[in-house]
Amino acid sequence: MRWLRYQGAGGIRYGTVEGTTVAEIDTTPFETWRRTGTTVQLGAVKTLVPVVPGTFYAIGQNYAAHAAEFGNPAAAGPARPQPGYRANSALIADGENIVIPAESGGIQYEGELVVVIGKPGRYVAERDALSIVLGYTIGNDVSERTWQRADSGLWRAKNTDTFKPMGPWIETDVNLDTLVTRVRINGKQMLEFKTNEMIFGVERYIAEITKYMTLHPGDVIWMGTEGSNADMKAGDVCEIELDQIGTLRNPVVAEQPR
Amino acid sequence: MRWLRYQGAGGIRYGTVEGTTVAEIDTTPFETWRRTGTTVQLGAVKTLVPVVPGTFYAIGQNYAAHAAEFGNPAAAGPARPQPGYRANSALIADGENIVIPAESGGIQYEGELVVVIGKPGRYVAERDALSIVLGYTIGNDVSERTWQRADSGLWRAKNTDTFKPMGPWIETDVNLDTLVTRVRINGKQMLEFKTNEMIFGVERYIAEITKYMTLHPGDVIWMGTEGSNADMKAGDVCEIELDQIGTLRNPVVAEQPR
Repeated sequence: MRWLRYQGAGGIRYGTVEGTTVAEIDTTPFETWRRTGTTVQLGAVKTLVPVVPGTFYAIGQNYAAHAAEFGNPAAAGPARPQPGYRANSALIADGENIVIPAESGGIQYEGELVVVIGKPGRYVAERDALSIVLGYTIGNDVSERTWQRADSGLWRAKNTDTFKPMGPWIETDVNLDTLVTRVRINGKQMLEFKTNEMIFGVERYIAEITKYMTLHPGDVIWMGTEGSNADMKAGDVCEIELDQIGTLRNPVVAEQPR
Repeated sequence: MRWLRYQGAGGIRYGTVEGTTVAEIDTTPFETWRRTGTTVQLGAVKTLVPVVPGTFYAIGQNYAAHAAEFGNPAAAGPARPQPGYRANSALIADGENIVIPAESGGIQYEGELVVVIGKPGRYVAERDALSIVLGYTIGNDVSERTWQRADSGLWRAKNTDTFKPMGPWIETDVNLDTLVTRVRINGKQMLEFKTNEMIFGVERYIAEITKYMTLHPGDVIWMGTEGSNADMKAGDVCEIELDQIGTLRNPVVAEQPR
């Protein structure tokens, strides 16, 4: 099942995508819901960020080659799962513009699997972890590398306005073990990797997080990216494809002079 | 004006506190509102966290003595404003229990001024910064020091369930320059400091953050703490008083065996 969040005639709505049609529901996929009977054409509605999370988790250095580039050079990756946080204010939907700040020294894409939590969980064992997941979407963890190097934290490097494209929808039916991530700039493939070849996987992260904190419906966990990424320039179009989920596509523009 | 968020008979409500009475409004203080005419007694309602933020900012090392204890020993404090983030899942209201995790090596209070944003702002100059503030509340940035030292980030050290008491209400009428913060454990004063003797103040932080990101109504910025803090143990009651705002009071309990 594929959940779209969109701007409906009467406000923000959720619906299921069936081919080119969206079948509206009365509440959200995080609650008891029923179909309203209203349908709209997928191409005719404004797609919104698939969920605005209560808590927005993000994992750094969760693939070997990316960890080698940005982590401790003496280690093959982090010794244990350690999530970080991102800012809701940076979220944009599929199709919206990634804006390169005027003072930026260069921004890069990072294609990521996003886990969308569906049920509350605390002290969830690894074997039960996927039972609290509603589904999966796609994230582009856009990063400003000069700020990432200059600052002691990631606050502006990864949370500047428009730096967190997420979408286009939530897919509930995904086989993590066969999932493939591809990143394209202007149609040219830049990266391809097996999505689940993470240092610590989805189940492990859910188990580790819920030792300390409750995961709530609507929370998201961005699972990190692999490989070395390239700078994006104004006029580019960045596409992140996770083959069983869909494609997150965002144009890149320069900040307008103020 | 003093805004209380509480559990009303018909659901979550906001009202203004006038002596021991709460005068209910129809929406929230972040929108156009009017009084409903309903009043309740302050002592008879369940107080809730005064706002669930869209983005939850927190400043580390923003007072000289605290920066010297936890920061770079060679520096008097950070060279520039650098906010971090906290997790909504850790928020609890005034009066709710701070839970010491079974595996904890010790938790400490940190008494903080919390800025509550009332209007959207981007590229806000320092001189205009307070115009986007709705008011102020109180935060206790509870911290597990063994995890803070062991981990590369603050995820569990500062975001474990119940580690973010905030409240009791939002006070709109505050003179930052005369504000005083006091921390008491079981009635004994542990700390007292002038709240506005920050390395970088509220106006500077709002200006710096909004160079990169939009601040939205309901966002909060926790401004950091001063001094050296002490361990809390089960049975303690921690009170953070900011004299013009009120007192945030939370009992401390041990995690129950599972």
